[in-house]
Amino acid sequence: MDEQNQLPAEPGTTATADPSSPSFTPEEADRDALIAAIEQSDAPACERWLDEVDAGELVHALSALSDEQRAKLLGLLGPESASDVISRLPELQALGALESVEAHVAAGIIGELDSDERAGLIRALDDDNAHAILGAMDPELARGIRTLAAYDEDSAGGLMLTEYLAFDEAATVREVLADIEANAEEYANYNIQYSYVIDTQGKLKGVLPLRNMLLARRSAAVSGIMIAYPIRVTDTATMDDVRAVFNEYAFMGLPVVDADDVLLGVIEASDVAQADAEQADDLYRQSQGIVGGEELRSMPLLLRSRRRLAWLSANIVLNIMAASIIALHQDTLEAVIALAVFLPIISDMSGCSGNQAVAVTMRELTLGVTKPRDALRVLVKESLLGLINGLALGTLIGAVAFAWKGNLFLSLVVGGSLAINTVVAVCIGGLIPLLLKKMKADPALASGPILTTVTDMCGFFIVLTFASMVLSQLT
Amino acid sequence: MDEQNQLPAEPGTTATADPSSPSFTPEEADRDALIAAIEQSDAPACERWLDEVDAGELVHALSALSDEQRAKLLGLLGPESASDVISRLPELQALGALESVEAHVAAGIIGELDSDERAGLIRALDDDNAHAILGAMDPELARGIRTLAAYDEDSAGGLMLTEYLAFDEAATVREVLADIEANAEEYANYNIQYSYVIDTQGKLKGVLPLRNMLLARRSAAVSGIMIAYPIRVTDTATMDDVRAVFNEYAFMGLPVVDADDVLLGVIEASDVAQADAEQADDLYRQSQGIVGGEELRSMPLLLRSRRRLAWLSANIVLNIMAASIIALHQDTLEAVIALAVFLPIISDMSGCSGNQAVAVTMRELTLGVTKPRDALRVLVKESLLGLINGLALGTLIGAVAFAWKGNLFLSLVVGGSLAINTVVAVCIGGLIPLLLKKMKADPALASGPILTTVTDMCGFFIVLTFASMVLSQLT
Repeated sequence: MDEQNQLPAEPGTTATADPSSPSFTPEEADRDALIAAIEQSDAPACERWLDEVDAGELVHALSALSDEQRAKLLGLLGPESASDVISRLPELQALGALESVEAHVAAGIIGELDSDERAGLIRALDDDNAHAILGAMDPELARGIRTLAAYDEDSAGGLMLTEYLAFDEAATVREVLADIEANAEEYANYNIQYSYVIDTQGKLKGVLPLRNMLLARRSAAVSGIMIAYPIRVTDTATMDDVRAVFNEYAFMGLPVVDADDVLLGVIEASDVAQADAEQADDLYRQSQGIVGGEELRSMPLLLRSRRRLAWLSANIVLNIMAASIIALHQDTLEAVIALAVFLPIISDMSGCSGNQAVAVTMRELTLGVTKPRDALRVLVKESLLGLINGLALGTLIGAVAFAWKGNLFLSLVVGGSLAINTVVAVCIGGLIPLLLKKMKADPALASGPILTTVTDMCGFFIVLTFASMVLSQLT
Repeated sequence: MDEQNQLPAEPGTTATADPSSPSFTPEEADRDALIAAIEQSDAPACERWLDEVDAGELVHALSALSDEQRAKLLGLLGPESASDVISRLPELQALGALESVEAHVAAGIIGELDSDERAGLIRALDDDNAHAILGAMDPELARGIRTLAAYDEDSAGGLMLTEYLAFDEAATVREVLADIEANAEEYANYNIQYSYVIDTQGKLKGVLPLRNMLLARRSAAVSGIMIAYPIRVTDTATMDDVRAVFNEYAFMGLPVVDADDVLLGVIEASDVAQADAEQADDLYRQSQGIVGGEELRSMPLLLRSRRRLAWLSANIVLNIMAASIIALHQDTLEAVIALAVFLPIISDMSGCSGNQAVAVTMRELTLGVTKPRDALRVLVKESLLGLINGLALGTLIGAVAFAWKGNLFLSLVVGGSLAINTVVAVCIGGLIPLLLKKMKADPALASGPILTTVTDMCGFFIVLTFASMVLSQLT
């Protein structure tokens, strides 16, 4: 938490372009000013630039720097400003920047971050870099980070902050206030709406809303004004468990304990919402075939190419399998070449219908409205919808076929096939995520390729089989 | 904010199945118990069920109810418990439930929610229902909701809460404490880590961290211990503006003022993160062809079918346009029927490659790393990647073609076409979201269909033109 009093007194200050260089846009002038300051090793100018730049432009300008420039900038800034830069960069760029500075510089920067950001970065760095950076830190700080980084990032331990206030149950309000005053600087970044009360073994005894302290006598014991037996989660609780608690109670923070009920940290509501946003981002990214981690265009070309190819290669093999159905029916196709025009349409439209069903199931899984055991309900709902949409689409494409060739049989073959395959596609699309979830596989990753392969094979088979059945009417 | 002391004293209490009905899963027993309680109009049993059910099962069980059952449940529960149910349901189900109870019941329920939830639901209800429900409320409350609901949901006004503490600048700490004590019940759900200081006209003068009050003399004026000139946004600020402030300063809350600097409300960090998560959900949903609003399978069949068909119909027209390229080259296809096997592969693989590029651009736009003015950079980066991936995929499919038919020319035509079309697809995929964003259109909605149509047309044209050029070698 930044303190408002660290801010410039005038709200709304934004960077303005140098009026002497009218050929530049303000944004280009911004970036060029930063690059010039970096090249000249002008630390005060870099600091000034950071203070003045428009927040929306900052990430863009920093992204446009080369890795060397970014590393040099971090070195020029003090650890505090550098940590500010690091926490505003997309994680991938932050990692790249930390890897390109010396370990002791990176250690200083990481030391300034919040505990959950520290652990997240160390978790994401490669082992050698993480080891070097932790080695350059205060050993106790490094130990704390190692402990947090060891948690799965989707567990309560991976979500929690270790910056919180905890007081012994025997303490009085006066002692607590004295502690807050004495450590005002350290606590400046803490969320202190709720403090926690622990016993001598560190076990969680209660929650102490700051408000209760405002109104209490200074000689009162905190155990007397705390809320006893607070809701808590263990450090190994899953993201789903944590989300369920926040859905049930509109808490701002949730204490995390170990198996012995010892207080370890606090999860904030905004961190859960942020984790949800990341999960939704991942879902979109994976559904579009960006797998193996996030991609930014600032990453090395060959890495980007290799990651994208990995997914494309699997896909092309599936595509060839599906297309082999066509190869098996070449004679039918040769007799009725018009069918070749409709094959890609049937393939694409079935894929579209199926993906709609995948999206609805994925969303219902996220909301908790559908569980894998609801497969039958999904099947009923989707098959009815598939019938309606299949008839509509089949009629449309059948009419187009008739208008083009004037052959009722061709029209029936093409339209009927699309209708049937739409039913197949929405049923498979609706069910695949449930099956993958049940099998503990990642539905976001695999649903799309499985869906399109199955629907393509099925669609090609149906249309070419129907055609071969009425071949004499088609030629 | 729920108070921890409203909770059951024993953490981890979860619903258990009735041991006398071993043929049911615990979840089915849960749901059946709820339905029985509703049918028997047994309000206490319904309340008990809500208290005891496992949080992860609650939404699922409520979703399985019919609309009538859900409406009856809301009527049986008091407004407070009913509002609890409403805020845990997905918005679509919450709206359906509110529409199916009488206006005065709905008004009572909505009155128990937080100001931003109230406004969100009223905004989403149809006009008749919203009017009836607001008419059944306390007029002043209704006026406040109307004002909030009039804001765009992605504006600062649409994101803000109106539950906050504000004190006159002339007030003393003693007066503030007395106010907090006197209104403890009303403030129980407020985030009071920060209070605000206003002048007699309501203009924002400062932020008052609760901590400062803890340590201050009771006779001190709040204007003496507040942080003056705090960062604020106006009610018309966009979501992007708000996000930029939260990215720049790690605030927990941000005051919202009108054009005259009068304090209107507070945006909490977790609300911004939640809005981000919703945006990412929308992006995924729209990219998969669920447009015109969220879909749950509990919605009426014909509505679901109509919405999905609207998007599919646009798509099938685009598909027919693309396939017409094949129809124009029927003679080539007739001569080399093997090409028909490769057309769907080229179409699908180009779509996959292009969608990867769309996803990377969408992500970079969200992160602020890429802006529409970076089109040239995107084009360079994607074309290089397209060359590598195109060569790899083209070689693979060329090898398959050669293995199948033993014709080097066929292999070159098919492989070369896929290679070229991959470059086209990634360039178009990378650029389309930037162009749409520049044209103020929604990139999530339109990128996919535009991409696949263009790449299909281009791919079919390239492969059939190449084939016609070397036709004698292929037959």
